[in-house]
Amino acid sequence: MSTSDIFLGEIVGTAVLILLGGGVCAAVTFRHSKAFNAGWTAIALGWGMAVLTGAYIAAGVSGAHLNPAVTVGLAVQGGTEWSDVPAYVLAQMIGAMLGASLVWVAYYGQFLAHLTGREATGGPGAQETAVADRTAQGPATPGPGPVLGIFSTAPEIRNTWQNLATEVVATVVLVLAILTQGLNQEGEGLGPLGVLITALVVVGIGLSLGGPTGYAINPARDLGPRLVHALLPLPNKGGSDWSYAWVPVAGPLLGGALAGGLYTLAFA
Amino acid sequence: MSTSDIFLGEIVGTAVLILLGGGVCAAVTFRHSKAFNAGWTAIALGWGMAVLTGAYIAAGVSGAHLNPAVTVGLAVQGGTEWSDVPAYVLAQMIGAMLGASLVWVAYYGQFLAHLTGREATGGPGAQETAVADRTAQGPATPGPGPVLGIFSTAPEIRNTWQNLATEVVATVVLVLAILTQGLNQEGEGLGPLGVLITALVVVGIGLSLGGPTGYAINPARDLGPRLVHALLPLPNKGGSDWSYAWVPVAGPLLGGALAGGLYTLAFA
Amino acid sequence: MSTSDIFLGEIVGTAVLILLGGGVCAAVTFRHSKAFNAGWTAIALGWGMAVLTGAYIAAGVSGAHLNPAVTVGLAVQGGTEWSDVPAYVLAQMIGAMLGASLVWVAYYGQFLAHLTGREATGGPGAQETAVADRTAQGPATPGPGPVLGIFSTAPEIRNTWQNLATEVVATVVLVLAILTQGLNQEGEGLGPLGVLITALVVVGIGLSLGGPTGYAINPARDLGPRLVHALLPLPNKGGSDWSYAWVPVAGPLLGGALAGGLYTLAFA
Amino acid sequence: MSTSDIFLGEIVGTAVLILLGGGVCAAVTFRHSKAFNAGWTAIALGWGMAVLTGAYIAAGVSGAHLNPAVTVGLAVQGGTEWSDVPAYVLAQMIGAMLGASLVWVAYYGQFLAHLTGREATGGPGAQETAVADRTAQGPATPGPGPVLGIFSTAPEIRNTWQNLATEVVATVVLVLAILTQGLNQEGEGLGPLGVLITALVVVGIGLSLGGPTGYAINPARDLGPRLVHALLPLPNKGGSDWSYAWVPVAGPLLGGALAGGLYTLAFA
Repeated sequence: MSTSDIFLGEIVGTAVLILLGGGVCAAVTFRHSKAFNAGWTAIALGWGMAVLTGAYIAAGVSGAHLNPAVTVGLAVQGGTEWSDVPAYVLAQMIGAMLGASLVWVAYYGQFLAHLTGREATGGPGAQETAVADRTAQGPATPGPGPVLGIFSTAPEIRNTWQNLATEVVATVVLVLAILTQGLNQEGEGLGPLGVLITALVVVGIGLSLGGPTGYAINPARDLGPRLVHALLPLPNKGGSDWSYAWVPVAGPLLGGALAGGLYTLAFA
Repeated sequence: MSTSDIFLGEIVGTAVLILLGGGVCAAVTFRHSKAFNAGWTAIALGWGMAVLTGAYIAAGVSGAHLNPAVTVGLAVQGGTEWSDVPAYVLAQMIGAMLGASLVWVAYYGQFLAHLTGREATGGPGAQETAVADRTAQGPATPGPGPVLGIFSTAPEIRNTWQNLATEVVATVVLVLAILTQGLNQEGEGLGPLGVLITALVVVGIGLSLGGPTGYAINPARDLGPRLVHALLPLPNKGGSDWSYAWVPVAGPLLGGALAGGLYTLAFA
Repeated sequence: MSTSDIFLGEIVGTAVLILLGGGVCAAVTFRHSKAFNAGWTAIALGWGMAVLTGAYIAAGVSGAHLNPAVTVGLAVQGGTEWSDVPAYVLAQMIGAMLGASLVWVAYYGQFLAHLTGREATGGPGAQETAVADRTAQGPATPGPGPVLGIFSTAPEIRNTWQNLATEVVATVVLVLAILTQGLNQEGEGLGPLGVLITALVVVGIGLSLGGPTGYAINPARDLGPRLVHALLPLPNKGGSDWSYAWVPVAGPLLGGALAGGLYTLAFA
Repeated sequence: MSTSDIFLGEIVGTAVLILLGGGVCAAVTFRHSKAFNAGWTAIALGWGMAVLTGAYIAAGVSGAHLNPAVTVGLAVQGGTEWSDVPAYVLAQMIGAMLGASLVWVAYYGQFLAHLTGREATGGPGAQETAVADRTAQGPATPGPGPVLGIFSTAPEIRNTWQNLATEVVATVVLVLAILTQGLNQEGEGLGPLGVLITALVVVGIGLSLGGPTGYAINPARDLGPRLVHALLPLPNKGGSDWSYAWVPVAGPLLGGALAGGLYTLAFA
């Protein structure tokens, strides 16, 4: 794997991952979105399909890690050179920041309306959407509100060791499944079927282990967009919650290394 | 690829795509539909399965572009001859108009009841449906209402440049994923697994980037049905929103070309 | 294909199809079911996975038609001998009746509680289910009610020609996709991937075209369970709606034949 | 298959299965979870993806039974040696108990808040989650409540023979589909596509036959976590419902054996 292939694949792939992943969070959060209030199944499916799309595009170029925890897990297991790790991680961070910025581009009007409390001007097509009247599903959140959740994760119950444990457990499952690719598919890299399986594993982790912390399971997925949140000129955006920021970095890295070790000891 | 194969595959495939895609919009919009109010996840899944079905049927005949943005992206990248582009686009437009007309056929009674406000006559089987009482999910939209959303897209917040940007970004993701097929599957065209992956990419784009504009990401998908809306003899149907019509044509075409260029520069 | 293989595969496969398909209708209809009120997406996914399971089990034995409309479509196209059609259809009818009876076995207590209005006795585990309090989702349907919808389909708006048209259109899409298998997979029969694609096509048809009539798209799926409804000793079960019964038989048969002809003319 | 491979694969695979399966039950049950009240479709998808992940990891090591009913079905059919059955079942029980314990680890704070009625302290990030205000979806269950449903199954209507019948029917479908693998995939074991199909079969069984009893369809899935529920030092946890415990053990074992016999008689 050449360094330029690593950069190319990981930047584009991680950007797509975060564009679609952050996108689904924006889609269910904003009142002026056709997916408003679509629920957790939509979010878990959205992040899974984000992994599918990003990994599918990057698979043939960089191997589609898209996640420092995966890179570390593969380095521990031996599938990736330790000397390649910095390039992977740097590219993943750049890609994640790019992706989070593109979410802002795609939902620019929604961010503005949400943060300033200004209702969007109801043009002639405003009531002509394909989705039936959403007031039927309960009152919408009124007025301005924070948007950090579109960028990075936050725990439902704030407890450092607890939140760390959840991220470690969830990441072990993810990286273990990815390392298993080698056993199942004769070492020919992540083919389309492997991409699909990995994406569905992420759907499963989201549904099952996303409840307590919002499943970062990927340091770049959390830290990159959090930096973008801090840098973007958004009015009333609120703080970037830096006190929590190390948890979704340390937890997944620990989980990835643990999975790499476990896999090497048990299955290799 | 012979011109007759292009016409055959693209007309049938795009007709199926729009029949099922427009169909799911009708299904959740109409009160007298078993899928009434089924929500955005249903719409995103429905459009994804529409792509799956249309592309699966057309794949072996015309390569299943079903989308001028895909055709343009492939032409820029070199996978399709520029001289074939007019045939593809014309066939896609014909297919899209055929598909939108079939939605009208399949939901004829629902269109009539919705647009005229006349309740359907409650025959002996009306209360014998498999779905539990839907009044439990909130009050339904009463009386007649516009139906343009079943045919073409409309933005939640009307802002030309913003809406254009969202369509460009979403289409770049779609076409990039489709062009990647070549890298992943050794040039043997869109096999069943490629069709499945593409369909799931579209599910992802719908969930994640469909919020602001309803994700046309396909000029034929929007313009064809909009023409049908304008031509059909529907009472109280409202306007066809022609002032917005160029956005879901220009945005996807720009996005497709951009993805073709990006792919050629970076991955080829 | 020997006649005994046809019988074996079609009876078992169609029984599984109807057991799971009728099962999901029971699951969302009954108040004393963990899936109560789960919505149309659950129903469309449930029927799709019912096709997946039934077809997967039968594929290697009888080719997994499981549907007289598919058998007729294949006969018109030439993939199945006309002399085998009676065996296929008879086996499908037997299987469908067996499957509908098994739904009754699996949901026996629910049928009784629903039809007699007697609340189930709340044993110690009644409030210990994994699903959160469903009263949060609105009032449940109280008292006894008809259950025909668990067995067979009924239109939302009763209009013979309209309902027939919807069934024809939906079945053409289904059978066209199934006949395309040959183009995509080099004639080696319905492999696991073909089963998966077919199941997802059915998910799509359910979401998109199921709204008006509940998508029989299969004469055996509708007529077999309707006969079982008429025969079962259920109290307060209501009529079996025989005046509508010919529509979901004739529509799908017409659609299957049409698809067979269309495919032969256009794609063969 | 060496005994150490059986132990390794079945312990890790079953632990992942129960971690994700129990996890999704926790995710929708707890108020302080981002997936609170996500509904039955989320649960059925979550258990399906749990099977996918666990089976994918274990497939190349132990063949991924993860379920005594599958092991017994294979033993009856001849695909597994009877002498290997004790090792499989013991490993599955150990894995299931490990997985249930990990659910407790991942949702520790949620268990505590739920069982003691103490609200979690609302840290700065508590209102910054990606999911829109859930009070819109109805009142949440207040105060402490039992949590047995996160560990093991309970019937909606308590009736021994009825509940047993439902579990037998659902398990026959599962094991029949798994035994069919051999017919469809030329005996090369459970490949990625076979894992995917099996997972989707489980999604289907959950949607369609999970209504009455919560679909144990796996003795280890029910008994292992029930033991963990009995052993864990949880305040106000309520009883472990031992009077019902034999039903989700006996039903699936009977169903598995029945499927093994049926398959051998009919398809072999």
